[in-house]
Amino acid sequence: ASNRASSKYLREFLDEMQPDQIREHLRKFTRLPHLAGTEQNLRYAEQIKKEWREFGLDSVEMVPYDVLLSYPNKSQPNYISIVDQLGNEVFNTSLAEPVPEGYEDVSNIVPPYSAYSAKGQPEGDLVYVNYGRTEDFFQLEREMHINATGKIAIVRYGKIFRGNKVKNAMLAGAKGIIMFSDPADYWASGVQPYPDGWNLPGGGAQRGNVLNLNGAGDPLTPGYPAKEYTYRFSLEDGVGLPKIPVHPIGFYDAVLLLKKVRMNIHTNNQVTRIYNVIGRIRGALEPDRYVILGGHRDAWVFGGIDPMSGAAVVHENVRSAGRLLSKGWRPRRTIIFASWDAEEFGLLGSTEWAEDNAKLLQERAVAYINADSAIEGMYTLRVDCTPSLHTLVYDLTKQVSRFICMQSNNILYLKIYMSKKPLISKLGSGSDFEAYFIRLGIAAGRARYTKNKKTERYSSYPVYHSVYETFEIVEKFYDPSFRRLRAVAQVRGGLIFLLADSQLLPLDANQYADSLRKYAQSIAQLAQKHPEEMEMYGVSFEFLFSSVDNFTVAARDFHERLQTINRVRLMNDQLMYLERAFIDPLGLPDRPFYRHVIFAPSSHNKYAGESFPGIYDALFDIENSADPQKAWEEVKRQISIAAFTVHAAAMTLTPPA
Amino acid sequence: ASNRASSKYLREFLDEMQPDQIREHLRKFTRLPHLAGTEQNLRYAEQIKKEWREFGLDSVEMVPYDVLLSYPNKSQPNYISIVDQLGNEVFNTSLAEPVPEGYEDVSNIVPPYSAYSAKGQPEGDLVYVNYGRTEDFFQLEREMHINATGKIAIVRYGKIFRGNKVKNAMLAGAKGIIMFSDPADYWASGVQPYPDGWNLPGGGAQRGNVLNLNGAGDPLTPGYPAKEYTYRFSLEDGVGLPKIPVHPIGFYDAVLLLKKVRMNIHTNNQVTRIYNVIGRIRGALEPDRYVILGGHRDAWVFGGIDPMSGAAVVHENVRSAGRLLSKGWRPRRTIIFASWDAEEFGLLGSTEWAEDNAKLLQERAVAYINADSAIEGMYTLRVDCTPSLHTLVYDLTKQVSRFICMQSNNILYLKIYMSKKPLISKLGSGSDFEAYFIRLGIAAGRARYTKNKKTERYSSYPVYHSVYETFEIVEKFYDPSFRRLRAVAQVRGGLIFLLADSQLLPLDANQYADSLRKYAQSIAQLAQKHPEEMEMYGVSFEFLFSSVDNFTVAARDFHERLQTINRVRLMNDQLMYLERAFIDPLGLPDRPFYRHVIFAPSSHNKYAGESFPGIYDALFDIENSADPQKAWEEVKRQISIAAFTVHAAAMTLTPPA
Repeated sequence: ASNRASSKYLREFLDEMQPDQIREHLRKFTRLPHLAGTEQNLRYAEQIKKEWREFGLDSVEMVPYDVLLSYPNKSQPNYISIVDQLGNEVFNTSLAEPVPEGYEDVSNIVPPYSAYSAKGQPEGDLVYVNYGRTEDFFQLEREMHINATGKIAIVRYGKIFRGNKVKNAMLAGAKGIIMFSDPADYWASGVQPYPDGWNLPGGGAQRGNVLNLNGAGDPLTPGYPAKEYTYRFSLEDGVGLPKIPVHPIGFYDAVLLLKKVRMNIHTNNQVTRIYNVIGRIRGALEPDRYVILGGHRDAWVFGGIDPMSGAAVVHENVRSAGRLLSKGWRPRRTIIFASWDAEEFGLLGSTEWAEDNAKLLQERAVAYINADSAIEGMYTLRVDCTPSLHTLVYDLTKQVSRFICMQSNNILYLKIYMSKKPLISKLGSGSDFEAYFIRLGIAAGRARYTKNKKTERYSSYPVYHSVYETFEIVEKFYDPSFRRLRAVAQVRGGLIFLLADSQLLPLDANQYADSLRKYAQSIAQLAQKHPEEMEMYGVSFEFLFSSVDNFTVAARDFHERLQTINRVRLMNDQLMYLERAFIDPLGLPDRPFYRHVIFAPSSHNKYAGESFPGIYDALFDIENSADPQKAWEEVKRQISIAAFTVHAAAMTLTPPA
Repeated sequence: ASNRASSKYLREFLDEMQPDQIREHLRKFTRLPHLAGTEQNLRYAEQIKKEWREFGLDSVEMVPYDVLLSYPNKSQPNYISIVDQLGNEVFNTSLAEPVPEGYEDVSNIVPPYSAYSAKGQPEGDLVYVNYGRTEDFFQLEREMHINATGKIAIVRYGKIFRGNKVKNAMLAGAKGIIMFSDPADYWASGVQPYPDGWNLPGGGAQRGNVLNLNGAGDPLTPGYPAKEYTYRFSLEDGVGLPKIPVHPIGFYDAVLLLKKVRMNIHTNNQVTRIYNVIGRIRGALEPDRYVILGGHRDAWVFGGIDPMSGAAVVHENVRSAGRLLSKGWRPRRTIIFASWDAEEFGLLGSTEWAEDNAKLLQERAVAYINADSAIEGMYTLRVDCTPSLHTLVYDLTKQVSRFICMQSNNILYLKIYMSKKPLISKLGSGSDFEAYFIRLGIAAGRARYTKNKKTERYSSYPVYHSVYETFEIVEKFYDPSFRRLRAVAQVRGGLIFLLADSQLLPLDANQYADSLRKYAQSIAQLAQKHPEEMEMYGVSFEFLFSSVDNFTVAARDFHERLQTINRVRLMNDQLMYLERAFIDPLGLPDRPFYRHVIFAPSSHNKYAGESFPGIYDALFDIENSADPQKAWEEVKRQISIAAFTVHAAAMTLTPPA
């Protein structure tokens, strides 16, 4: 397609996406609970497959894997009790959330639970551990002289991934852990609880898995797809399974718990079949270059926000792409659409497919765009992406904003276009892009509508992973006009379109150079908190900065050559493989599947999106090391790895011969 | 270049290579000892750089690394003594080999030693451990009830890599190990010792490193190039360094050793600068596709055979390619010529460069041809290569044979062309192709003149790694006409030419399919020695065979499509990346740099070139496991990994969209 034709098609593609269509999709796929591994989630998969075919994709297939999931025992419910001195249970936490109006007759609503909790009925004194971060346990032990060993920890949700709270509690010797949603973290001021507003009712609780997978996918088949012939580890050897009982409760129950409690946890792990739906549009000129749009379909209950607000948007992207195909368009490169299963159980569907197709993706994948929840607030559009996508995101959001502005007077135009400061952040972790970005090194991004972080301080959104994530909460509160979701559809769709159809790949190495410099400065500053030790142990960031200088020159020269040289495929390959260059095949220490030297999550703060995680973790460990010399040696080693990686990445941008 | 022009150039390229030129090159680079890290080896590097430039390469550069080498202490020689009851040394082994005629005035001949030996003066009873294989120690312990703990082991060279002998002796508790060249293994019958023939004199001994690197390269910087900014482990944390003293002796000394001896070893490890020479011819149409011809330059002493017979051949290849360039030829793809340093110390130069350029090589390398010693016997040509090169090797040797036949009535024509059975074997390990083939998964091959394995039973060749590897031994005995070396030059050069200049890559997936089936049958047969256990533990090769079936169909279909489809670059990429598909990023158990699932060396027999090394090692371990169930679980896991890998490789050959 010529650039002009492509641009005309882009406009048609974006115009085709309609709020009412997205509303329809969302309505259709949120009527019933569709937890991973259940029949209903298979039915939705079949429906998506059928409709994607009708929309006009070249092929749609169902790809099953058999992975370890975890469900409550239906005949023995999980709960926490207060026991008296005779061992009698004098108070029990609720067995379920109050069901929202209109859903009273729905069966198969899984009660709040912590997936992959160990079974058990530990009894003991409660110890409050705040957010359960490493620093919280330090404070407890060092300043307050409170020992969690043999106790049951109670922790509030927020700040870090719940699996890390469980790991920290285990390390501190706790024999069980209870997690609750503190209104301080899950309550927006001036907002009513659902159904009168979008706050979490006191009887609501946050479900979620409590694994420490570090990107391994299915706990029993780390590194390999969970197929019929795949060897499975025993549960004892599985990756990241907690050894203690874990349970989530709502605030109403949390305030009633007394000093001494008993946990009653009967949750079962079982190998269960899950289903990804994979649809394709074959590329006209470069069928062996893949642009992927993937998001999950499985939900804890109805998935009104997480993930179906995102899945409805993908559905609309597919419908709209199908319309273009019927008008004669065909993208230059292959587009792959994915409806992932079992994201909630540890990104399982997306990771197994990445493991299954790693060789193809490594050589052929241009970019991965993630499509989890499309809305988590009402304030503005938010894009998290790799630096090489910054320019594209900025250019595209201007275009989308222009559309939106013309069509709806949306503030997006003001927020993004006029301010010239689109809200672009680093990619963190915790959604399906992990295996693609952090393990394989494929340029990645995600887009959603978000809250105003400055004024809205609660974690994620209040009803997150509760039964109150319904279609109605989106329709009544988050996006009554469905124009926010349309904007997200246009951004996600536009990214896919331009990555698949531009002759020259719209990736910008100069942006990567700018970001690397910023990150290097920031991590060096963190180390500078210890000037004497840096002196004593000979720690220097000199080579990291000189490798960033190299990279900056290489990127600038590359884009200059791009103006004059017409070896499109050759230079596109250099752009495509730039992200790959940041992968260290050895992985981070003890985390073989977290391999991105710049953007893998830190061990200590999975969500924060620290850069140079190897250096960050090594610096973090200094505080607690019994052997400071050894700890500083590790800092030096990590700086050296970072410098080498940036240097090697710069080499990929130089002329190939 | 059109195919006809390319074919004309190939003939000119092969015709240009001349025996006298190769003789000249060999003479020039074998006058002085040029151990890695010495000034003389740098001088040869500079000379090669200068001459490659004069020959007409587009660029030649010197690439240094600072790696851990090991040298004897000049003021405290290494030797073994027999001590009497008072502790007096009543007999000492010789401190050097008798120097061959004509080289009496040469200084800097390093005496026989085991590079990287621990220092020390252990004293103890000798225990003879045959070849020092796992099975030799088992026999010793189980059948003969002899315990090596606290003793000094004496082992004969041969069968397995000397580093493995040292590892096995350490595991058996020996406090030192002496290695000797047994005439049974290093003596050709009916041949005189040098200088009257090519047998090893009784005063000669085999030098060599005794590391267990498993592909790590420089012991202090595993995974990363040993550059200025690279973090270096301490010697205690280095990879593969033996903890006990090791020393090699000749046969004359070996027969004199009595029951009780003292070792006196003062060898030093030191970080030392080494130099690779890298020359390039820029590809005309696909500059970002690399064909590499690499061989080492460093020698234990003069390197008459190892490696300069190979280096002289590379020199002639470069000269001949330069002549073609001057006639207007330019290959389609980029050709890289490499003169590696420090191969003798653990493949260090080639591995560091592979680590330095891993990202580029992973995306761009088409093939790696190795150029170590070009002659180790006088019988016939021998090629070891990846199965996808079989067809090319066969076709090319026919052409070379025709030339040779026309020019010299060489038996090669009869041996290879008429019999239609070229001597093609699996690639093993132990030379510079390791990092390229086994770590990175680049299609690789090597060619040399060899002995008749059926009638000549000695290991490698008798004077291997002794001072008697001179120019004269080649000129007088191995190849007086230098036509054998010319044949090797034509095969190595021809491979490089055709890989770099053929429009369609001359790689054959069907041959890989045939080989995989053979290997799968062979490893399944090995397991069938234990039918009851296979039944009991549910071990099945079914999925491995079905993945081989898949692969066979995918390969056949691929080559059928190749007849009709004209997407050359796309399908060339599929061929290029086929070898990559056999790489498991997780590596073999505890050997992260041995990643080739089909061809990595086995832990137990580095030289044998077992296929499916993961399964092979797991089966080997069954014999000695205290927990047979666990051992069989590992067999099952390894079969599953092999099946997955072959399956994934098959997927890379299917149409990309």
